[in-house]
Amino acid sequence: MRDVCLRAGFGEVVTPTFEHSELFTLRSGQAVIDEMYAFRDKGDREMALRPEITASVIRFFVNELSNSPKPLKLYYVGNCFRYENPQSGRFREFFQLGAELIGSKNPETDAEVIALAVNAIRSTGLKDFTVRVGHIGILKSLVQAEIPDKQAVAEVLRMLDKEDFDALGDMFDARTLPRKLFDRITTIAEMRGSVEIMDSLEKSEATDHLREIFRILSLYGIEDCKIDLGIVRGLDYYTGMVFEIDAPALGAEKQIMGGGSYTLSELFGGEPVFSTGFAIGIDRVALALAAEGEKKPHTPLDAYVIPAKDDMRDHAFRIVSSLRAEGVRADVDLMRRNMSKNLKYASSAGAKCAIIVGSKEMADNSVTLRDMRTGDQRVVAVGDLAKVVAGLG
Amino acid sequence: MRDVCLRAGFGEVVTPTFEHSELFTLRSGQAVIDEMYAFRDKGDREMALRPEITASVIRFFVNELSNSPKPLKLYYVGNCFRYENPQSGRFREFFQLGAELIGSKNPETDAEVIALAVNAIRSTGLKDFTVRVGHIGILKSLVQAEIPDKQAVAEVLRMLDKEDFDALGDMFDARTLPRKLFDRITTIAEMRGSVEIMDSLEKSEATDHLREIFRILSLYGIEDCKIDLGIVRGLDYYTGMVFEIDAPALGAEKQIMGGGSYTLSELFGGEPVFSTGFAIGIDRVALALAAEGEKKPHTPLDAYVIPAKDDMRDHAFRIVSSLRAEGVRADVDLMRRNMSKNLKYASSAGAKCAIIVGSKEMADNSVTLRDMRTGDQRVVAVGDLAKVVAGLG
Repeated sequence: MRDVCLRAGFGEVVTPTFEHSELFTLRSGQAVIDEMYAFRDKGDREMALRPEITASVIRFFVNELSNSPKPLKLYYVGNCFRYENPQSGRFREFFQLGAELIGSKNPETDAEVIALAVNAIRSTGLKDFTVRVGHIGILKSLVQAEIPDKQAVAEVLRMLDKEDFDALGDMFDARTLPRKLFDRITTIAEMRGSVEIMDSLEKSEATDHLREIFRILSLYGIEDCKIDLGIVRGLDYYTGMVFEIDAPALGAEKQIMGGGSYTLSELFGGEPVFSTGFAIGIDRVALALAAEGEKKPHTPLDAYVIPAKDDMRDHAFRIVSSLRAEGVRADVDLMRRNMSKNLKYASSAGAKCAIIVGSKEMADNSVTLRDMRTGDQRVVAVGDLAKVVAGLG
Repeated sequence: MRDVCLRAGFGEVVTPTFEHSELFTLRSGQAVIDEMYAFRDKGDREMALRPEITASVIRFFVNELSNSPKPLKLYYVGNCFRYENPQSGRFREFFQLGAELIGSKNPETDAEVIALAVNAIRSTGLKDFTVRVGHIGILKSLVQAEIPDKQAVAEVLRMLDKEDFDALGDMFDARTLPRKLFDRITTIAEMRGSVEIMDSLEKSEATDHLREIFRILSLYGIEDCKIDLGIVRGLDYYTGMVFEIDAPALGAEKQIMGGGSYTLSELFGGEPVFSTGFAIGIDRVALALAAEGEKKPHTPLDAYVIPAKDDMRDHAFRIVSSLRAEGVRADVDLMRRNMSKNLKYASSAGAKCAIIVGSKEMADNSVTLRDMRTGDQRVVAVGDLAKVVAGLG
């Protein structure tokens, strides 16, 4: 995933693992305090292990990078923390890879960020996931046009986010809000499908924006996104496009990515700047891969070098050293085992081949290469080894 | 550095960022508590942000991996914490890359671990660093042979570690310990140089072990290590070979790596198992690189794609997408800038080349490639772009 970010021109940033609690409550509100891994340090300061990384990145941007040429493209990989009962897909320590594109709100920048998230997840080998893209402005503008009370607007949006339409209906009744608005917004909140689903809506800046995003995504080779106008996302600072990715295999905790366009820099004393970003839950992606039958990541050896006799050990060390220098993942017998135990170790370590260093072959500066999958053996010149091992595929 | 570890057959492990404080005091003694970033969590447990990662790796080995084939080769990259006044090279949060080879105490495993540390540091581009290798058994056995009190032995070794020979002399006087022993151990503690420096010592298991390590290191192409018999290292669990790497450019805080062979598994309820490991201070390596004039790491673009006119934007998106898919670090105009502003942005982003997508060239499925360093321009077929960009070196 790092490599996908680098290829798209994003640079890695590293921010502190814990911060003053205030940094996070500024962004996410006091409500997050209960879920935060907050503590008092020895200097009696209110600190918290970070629940997310975006706030730190934007603070870093405001303090250090605000004069950089725009758009500024940053990504991060880091551990985050929540104080909750651990359960599958909800660990107390979890890992996120995220990106922030700062300084633009064009459809092309939104599309770029969506493409990055999709390509990063694709690169893990995950097959079954769905990308849903919405626009917070569609529901928000309808609600704001008819409900003057800001608090009530926020509450309506929160219920839409949770898809708690019963509670929303009760609230509309209690406050005698227009039933027509309720019908309209719950209909829109349930709209999911291809871009054409928006044909039933009035043309607006938001629908134009979404259409252009989908057009650019198809130029990027990303054809399988869906419109989902019900995505509201909990936090107040989202301004336009919002998107989520799910891995259906995960059941209840199926969301593996969330993001959207937002303004946050004012919170940290900066000028208002439009940004678009996302965060991928790495642990959940790993769980989803496991659910698809992907074996847990391991680092198999390309080659395991075995001295046939004790007097071949020095040759074996030289050979393993030059293989590594040429980029081969190579190991060597360090335990002075006999041949059959060494072959057993090579097999359990998942080595593609064993390289047997015998005195007869070394007289010709050659070794015996044994393909560990087929058992085939052949003699290979030491100078050709790296190339031959690489060719084992 | 990760890549060097992988090529040497080490697999990455990730352990928790904070643990019960006890895990760390078990390994390092109560003395570390004051320097630890310890706190009480909401459940009133004594927790600490990890001051180091070895204890967690060995605990993980004991609990989960003790039946794996030996040697087991693990590495980690992670953030560690200390509660101290921050200063250059001593940050409250700092990063370590470390490795542990578990299940052997052969000279070849010690040599393998030293070679890994040296190759990892070499891979960063750092030029001026010194590798010092010693053996804790040489001083320890001399001291233990003449001083029966274990506490006194530990105190002597601590003073040797700090090279505080004045205090050591005072202690010898106060306890009327043999002056001859004092002279002998302080002479040895100051022995630094090539392997031959050990010719003046009685042949022992320890000197044989060190000689064999140096012989294997030279087979690995590592010729510039020095013997330093004064390395004692503070912690009690080191058993044999100990080694350190310094970057002289850093002055007082010049140590960038420390390691050695040890047994720790018993502390966590496991069988005694010999291991050899090290930890590199990544922040200090970065400071040393900066002192050598290395520019701070950045991620320059290979190519920046510019649509010459608005109707070329879609072609530009397709081209940047296929360049990225072929492994090129590529970006595209997302701000609808004019040509001169785009070229300026390409230059400030450090792009090697700008790829100008014009309608005339696109009619031939070609683009104009501008070398940003020389200003030279030439027409290149879209299908050849990735190869041509890679060839810019």
